[in-house]
Amino acid sequence: MDRSDLRARSAPAGGAHSDSNNAIDRRAALVRLSGIVAAAALGAPAGAVGDPREGLPPQATAGGDRLRMIATEEAFWIPEVAEAMRDVLKRGGTNLDLKLLSLICGPAEEVRTTDPAPSAPASSEANRDAVARKLLPQLLDFDAGRLADMDANGVDMHLLSLGIPGVQMFDTELAIALARLCNDRLTEAVRRHPTRFAGLACFAPQDPRAAAVEMERAITTLKLNGFLVNSHTQGVYLDDPRCWPILEAAEALGAPLYLHPRAPSDGMAAPFQDYRMEGAIWGYAMEAGTHAVRLMLSGVLDRFPRLRIVLGHMGEALPFWLWRLDFMAGPGSRKALRNQLKPSEYVQRNFAITTSGMEDPVALRLCIEKIGVDHVMWAIDYPYQRTAPAVKFLQSALLSDQERAQIAFRNAERIFHLAT
Amino acid sequence: MDRSDLRARSAPAGGAHSDSNNAIDRRAALVRLSGIVAAAALGAPAGAVGDPREGLPPQATAGGDRLRMIATEEAFWIPEVAEAMRDVLKRGGTNLDLKLLSLICGPAEEVRTTDPAPSAPASSEANRDAVARKLLPQLLDFDAGRLADMDANGVDMHLLSLGIPGVQMFDTELAIALARLCNDRLTEAVRRHPTRFAGLACFAPQDPRAAAVEMERAITTLKLNGFLVNSHTQGVYLDDPRCWPILEAAEALGAPLYLHPRAPSDGMAAPFQDYRMEGAIWGYAMEAGTHAVRLMLSGVLDRFPRLRIVLGHMGEALPFWLWRLDFMAGPGSRKALRNQLKPSEYVQRNFAITTSGMEDPVALRLCIEKIGVDHVMWAIDYPYQRTAPAVKFLQSALLSDQERAQIAFRNAERIFHLAT
Repeated sequence: MDRSDLRARSAPAGGAHSDSNNAIDRRAALVRLSGIVAAAALGAPAGAVGDPREGLPPQATAGGDRLRMIATEEAFWIPEVAEAMRDVLKRGGTNLDLKLLSLICGPAEEVRTTDPAPSAPASSEANRDAVARKLLPQLLDFDAGRLADMDANGVDMHLLSLGIPGVQMFDTELAIALARLCNDRLTEAVRRHPTRFAGLACFAPQDPRAAAVEMERAITTLKLNGFLVNSHTQGVYLDDPRCWPILEAAEALGAPLYLHPRAPSDGMAAPFQDYRMEGAIWGYAMEAGTHAVRLMLSGVLDRFPRLRIVLGHMGEALPFWLWRLDFMAGPGSRKALRNQLKPSEYVQRNFAITTSGMEDPVALRLCIEKIGVDHVMWAIDYPYQRTAPAVKFLQSALLSDQERAQIAFRNAERIFHLAT
Repeated sequence: MDRSDLRARSAPAGGAHSDSNNAIDRRAALVRLSGIVAAAALGAPAGAVGDPREGLPPQATAGGDRLRMIATEEAFWIPEVAEAMRDVLKRGGTNLDLKLLSLICGPAEEVRTTDPAPSAPASSEANRDAVARKLLPQLLDFDAGRLADMDANGVDMHLLSLGIPGVQMFDTELAIALARLCNDRLTEAVRRHPTRFAGLACFAPQDPRAAAVEMERAITTLKLNGFLVNSHTQGVYLDDPRCWPILEAAEALGAPLYLHPRAPSDGMAAPFQDYRMEGAIWGYAMEAGTHAVRLMLSGVLDRFPRLRIVLGHMGEALPFWLWRLDFMAGPGSRKALRNQLKPSEYVQRNFAITTSGMEDPVALRLCIEKIGVDHVMWAIDYPYQRTAPAVKFLQSALLSDQERAQIAFRNAERIFHLAT
């Protein structure tokens, strides 16, 4: 591959990608970073920098136009999956995902919601363990409740995907069968509401060749928009050669693979056993970020150069670490490395990120600066996080109108091949 | 504790800490974030925003004054530690730190530096495994070579600490003895060069009560400036009640505890076995960040409220994750949480960070915005990273003169009680 050619092709439209090895570029990047923020400080028109008003009507934007909003990491379950999850729970085991499963669909008596630390102060925040008990009806609802939530908040579309941990804790045959069933139900929902839903298919990584067959059906027959996988499967990561048929299928189908977190695999679980650290508090990020770095350093992205990986949670902190990743893991810089490109070059060519579960404008600005605004998409993480604050975050973050449109819908339309 | 009082006390001088639950504060924070960057974009005098010249003379600053530079995460070894490390290597085992130790002080025949992936392109970067072979003389040198490197780059002071993995892989009695010996040798070096060196003491967490005794000696007798510990010891983290004597001593002595990374503990090692992911590429951050989150969520920072923890590598990404940590781990929000404050409140009260190994101005700006410039200190990570680029990063990052001085030396003088 001609690497100079790659760089030319991969440079984001806005030129936002900074090469930190070049001081002049660094300086230019920081000046660009100021961009819209500087304009705001100097009293530029509100339409150019985001609207300072609180309580913006859901469908209004800073400039007064309606902002199309496509949420890209929105979960569903089907009843058959819930039943199979209950069987997984009954079987028990050490996997840390069992903690969340127990809250979502375990026996009610397992849940004690009124036992904070004796010394903990009264908190205005809802007890998240209690909230988790209410998730199941929302996960199972493809229609009235979900659409009402979207309408109330001006959300145009959910890009739906089977919720964590997908079919990846089931026995292989069941996983294959339930993946097919989920994809069929998902397709039905999309067909019922074609302007409101699109879908990411699931598959059973337990059998990569069967997965590839289902992946092809999902794109060519069901016309779904990509795939979502919940990180490891039985401790196996996608850089493992056994998983290559999955990566090969995603690349060949031109369909993005959303690498969603799950709790740390058993081989890294020990320090995450306490304080609910296995989940969204911390462990999800460690698991999914580690998985993404494995994809970079293993060389599989050289084998499948057109593969597109989507990371949630503002890229699982990879944008924050990108300077260090490049510095420490340049091609050939250690004998165990197999990557032919720098991590930041893979990010430009092979990755995109979403804002799921991260409503922080400062982290968003870092992500835009480090990987380019055309690599960033909006997400809610419904129903695990609430829609209204995610919408407010998108509408109030200090972005140019163009940046906001790219993040709100344009990048999703392009990357997931959504009908416009 | 009166939490409103805490907030008042902990607000950074510059008011940079943003409360992401408040949209007005968020907006104000983003406008502040633009600050100096905006000024640069608009042609403010170079002295106010950093000097655009390449190849700045080592001791010149943007404004032309000499910038005092105190590097806060600078490693040394002593020959007796090197010998004990060789014994650890001979014994072998599964711990991932053995990979780095093998490169630093293992038998020469173990090192093969000319075996990149067959398909890897020629790289202009040095082979880091080969570079690691040259570290030992630099680690052992407290005098001529180290001072020459400092002088050549205008570095005033190294805050020295025993390099990774410290005494934490030795048998308990040996660890206790070598910690004493290291602290004595460190003290001698500081006394030989009192304006050029200060020191962080080591201790043997294998025996927390003995550690506390040595910690007291290090501060009250040896007049050292704090402590450094390399994350877990035999898989035990500092929130473990067995380690509380260590935290109690650090708090009582008013001395900061630098929580330095090491490779992931055996209980989380599996996904870090390949591609040298155990080290500075990725695993260090996962290990040290996870350790820091355990300290937050376990409640030990409520038990030891005046404890000061210092994190390297721009806070091991905690600043990036702070919005999500606050959102997911508010006090009482899950029944397994033991924290009485929000993670961001602990950061304000109990943490500081350094820039070791991270020469990225974009990540630096995020850290300043999220935790306040008075919590950020400069570091080189000598001899693992080179001095000149770390100095250039500090001198060229777009900072106000005040911010640059805080990061370069003022915060270190305050936090580590360094003589000025």
